[in-house]
Amino acid sequence: MDAAAARRGRSLIDVDQLTPAEVHWLLDTARSFEEVSRRAVKKVPALRGRTVVNLFFEPSTRTRISFELAAKRLSADVVNFAAAASSVVKGEALKDTVLTLQAMGVDALVVRHPCSGAPGVIDGWTDAAVINAGDGMHAHPTQALLDCYALIRRIGCLQDKRIAIVGDIMHSRVARSCIKAFTMLGAEVVLVAPPTLMPAGLPPETRFSYVLEDVLEDCDVFYLLRLQTERQEEGLIPSLREYAAAYQMDARRLGRARPHALVMHPGPINRGVEISAEVADGPRAVMLDQVTSGLAVRMAVLFMALGGKEGGDAESG
Amino acid sequence: MDAAAARRGRSLIDVDQLTPAEVHWLLDTARSFEEVSRRAVKKVPALRGRTVVNLFFEPSTRTRISFELAAKRLSADVVNFAAAASSVVKGEALKDTVLTLQAMGVDALVVRHPCSGAPGVIDGWTDAAVINAGDGMHAHPTQALLDCYALIRRIGCLQDKRIAIVGDIMHSRVARSCIKAFTMLGAEVVLVAPPTLMPAGLPPETRFSYVLEDVLEDCDVFYLLRLQTERQEEGLIPSLREYAAAYQMDARRLGRARPHALVMHPGPINRGVEISAEVADGPRAVMLDQVTSGLAVRMAVLFMALGGKEGGDAESG
Amino acid sequence: MDAAAARRGRSLIDVDQLTPAEVHWLLDTARSFEEVSRRAVKKVPALRGRTVVNLFFEPSTRTRISFELAAKRLSADVVNFAAAASSVVKGEALKDTVLTLQAMGVDALVVRHPCSGAPGVIDGWTDAAVINAGDGMHAHPTQALLDCYALIRRIGCLQDKRIAIVGDIMHSRVARSCIKAFTMLGAEVVLVAPPTLMPAGLPPETRFSYVLEDVLEDCDVFYLLRLQTERQEEGLIPSLREYAAAYQMDARRLGRARPHALVMHPGPINRGVEISAEVADGPRAVMLDQVTSGLAVRMAVLFMALGGKEGGDAESG
Repeated sequence: MDAAAARRGRSLIDVDQLTPAEVHWLLDTARSFEEVSRRAVKKVPALRGRTVVNLFFEPSTRTRISFELAAKRLSADVVNFAAAASSVVKGEALKDTVLTLQAMGVDALVVRHPCSGAPGVIDGWTDAAVINAGDGMHAHPTQALLDCYALIRRIGCLQDKRIAIVGDIMHSRVARSCIKAFTMLGAEVVLVAPPTLMPAGLPPETRFSYVLEDVLEDCDVFYLLRLQTERQEEGLIPSLREYAAAYQMDARRLGRARPHALVMHPGPINRGVEISAEVADGPRAVMLDQVTSGLAVRMAVLFMALGGKEGGDAESG
Repeated sequence: MDAAAARRGRSLIDVDQLTPAEVHWLLDTARSFEEVSRRAVKKVPALRGRTVVNLFFEPSTRTRISFELAAKRLSADVVNFAAAASSVVKGEALKDTVLTLQAMGVDALVVRHPCSGAPGVIDGWTDAAVINAGDGMHAHPTQALLDCYALIRRIGCLQDKRIAIVGDIMHSRVARSCIKAFTMLGAEVVLVAPPTLMPAGLPPETRFSYVLEDVLEDCDVFYLLRLQTERQEEGLIPSLREYAAAYQMDARRLGRARPHALVMHPGPINRGVEISAEVADGPRAVMLDQVTSGLAVRMAVLFMALGGKEGGDAESG
Repeated sequence: MDAAAARRGRSLIDVDQLTPAEVHWLLDTARSFEEVSRRAVKKVPALRGRTVVNLFFEPSTRTRISFELAAKRLSADVVNFAAAASSVVKGEALKDTVLTLQAMGVDALVVRHPCSGAPGVIDGWTDAAVINAGDGMHAHPTQALLDCYALIRRIGCLQDKRIAIVGDIMHSRVARSCIKAFTMLGAEVVLVAPPTLMPAGLPPETRFSYVLEDVLEDCDVFYLLRLQTERQEEGLIPSLREYAAAYQMDARRLGRARPHALVMHPGPINRGVEISAEVADGPRAVMLDQVTSGLAVRMAVLFMALGGKEGGDAESG
């Protein structure tokens, strides 16, 4: 709780800013907030009168709604700011926007931006807490934390669990943040991708494979990444069909995996590409748990970022 | 109240799911809520901490604002989700969206969708209450209920009243739901449309006419439907001018009607097409009453859908 | 307080509707609200249960968020209505929209519209309070009031201060409202613009100049107006570069001004056009104070417009 207390009032740009103790504090806090979302009256006064702005420079209805509901269930005031993809705000114009919002007394900015690093730069401009909701190919820390939360709820401590992250590792901010988070909590990560989608310059100790079959039998979790269909036009995969033939998690492959192996995906799924419909709707898919976890974890992250200013209490209300 | 109690916590896809007793309970509840909207502090805590999502796959500012205000005046948290007409979510992608929202602990989905039947399908996927806010050419139950409410407030019980529904019956979800609701409350409905806009296969007992003059003198209410100007390009009407010449409610025609006959329209009006400006702004037009009724009725529908989970009370606060 | 009390419940279309006493009451009220925005719990119950609609027919994220936060910090319910620039609602359709919102029990309409005069026309249609958030080239009263507020906070009473308004006076609603407000509070205004951007038919007593250098040494405030880049295509300025050479407030020019002279701009700034980056980020630029003031002044305006209906009290909560 000491480490956590020190963290409060600060931003969250990526997972590696957090110590393991802080991650555990966040996950514990999320647990108490998840209970709130199961009540009929899904609301606590923890952040009453605080102002949260969703500053989305990339469309993402799911993530925006998850943060919006997280803030509302903590009784914060939320304002949505969505810039059209065509008018992405850069440089001085972005700084003016951020300083303008700060001058309005905004307490937290939840930022999604197509440029890697934008939330970190914004964090340097403002006293408001900045929560990274996904930036370019860089990081997506709340996704990684919610994945840890969802996994721990299903299989307990991640120590020595083996997690395969499968798909377009190279372009994935989700993969980057998940590798850090899973590793921090003691899991072993193995990366699976075609050579064209595997990042260059991996640290020498990284386990990886180009062949899903190679890791099928010794993983506890298969984390499938969303494949952008642009990869086909870019020539990075021959076709969606061939990609699916080699990397789709389907019933046949899952049948060869450990009996309790789980299947995760950050959503939204391309059914029939990364994952077959049968597996997506089956008992070993954790995607809806991930969504539920996302709300609880984002409540905890907002509470960490803002609750400390007056020593708010997660249990109250 | 017994029938009503049984209904609570359930969805509203179309009017014919409701018994007459349930309709009367809704209208009575709406009456108590209408009073709330006349106060300076237009708010009751009936649905505090419940989450309502406006899931609109078809643009409709009026209906969205009506539901948004209804939810807010009941102290619910509201999130808007508007999908561009170009990216209408279908099939599995729609199901994923709905299950994602359910996983976030959403209590009610207010759904408008261009495909007939979509809200009913969604209702089969989720435990959240689904309120149909208009689907394709199928149904628009809250419109029909608010029309009943507005009419009863003006002319009392609908038993044996005669209501002409005039215009593009064939393509109108409003007409379909209104026919059911008006009939259920004892009114006699007569349909008036050009042959090209009259649905085929009407039940044999249906009264209808191709000529507005034929029914002018023996109706208590003229319910004009909005004419989509596409009907002209589709060749279903020769021109807006000729349509107006035959079916517009104007001062001359209204002068031949019963002295207390009323004029309704679901809005937004095409002035000079379905209705002349003089009649639209005159004392026998009920359109603004319909809007006010809409808010009260939608509060009642949301309260029916959600209030029962904890036995909330419409009168409290 | 008497004049102010009389004003409550009324609309704000332009500054000249207000008496100096009313302006002072608004600025005093804003002062008490600014303190609210500095608390951790930035919320007072002054307008609980009132409904405010942001009716924006012109995109403006900053102004919309400023009004949205102002309303939320007063505990009002806020609904956003943004019409695409392409579908600007006019004439009867606009009237129908306004009457529809009134029929929903809306208490205040915050209106931004590209047509000069639209908020005034709307005010004639509805009992709801209408707050002009900028209309065409006509007026922007909350901008002018917030500028007065920000200035008074910096330099005290405006009596006998000299304020240069510099730039595209001809097309500027900000200039029109600021001239009225600054003059009402006793300041002397001097207009500086190229002849092509200076309005014709100025009152004979108006001080003006085509040359910024002429007024550099005897002004307390330089208020730079945003230059729409369209002016170049319209041939009203030779080029942005030449405009900047003659009218940009840069360090060299500011060095020649009085040592305590301030620089204002309604935002968003075109850095390097109206104002150099160095001056924009320097200690004499008041732009962020203007933003902070905007929130406080808009809270006061909304409170004036709505608070009186039940004798709400700015201090409560």
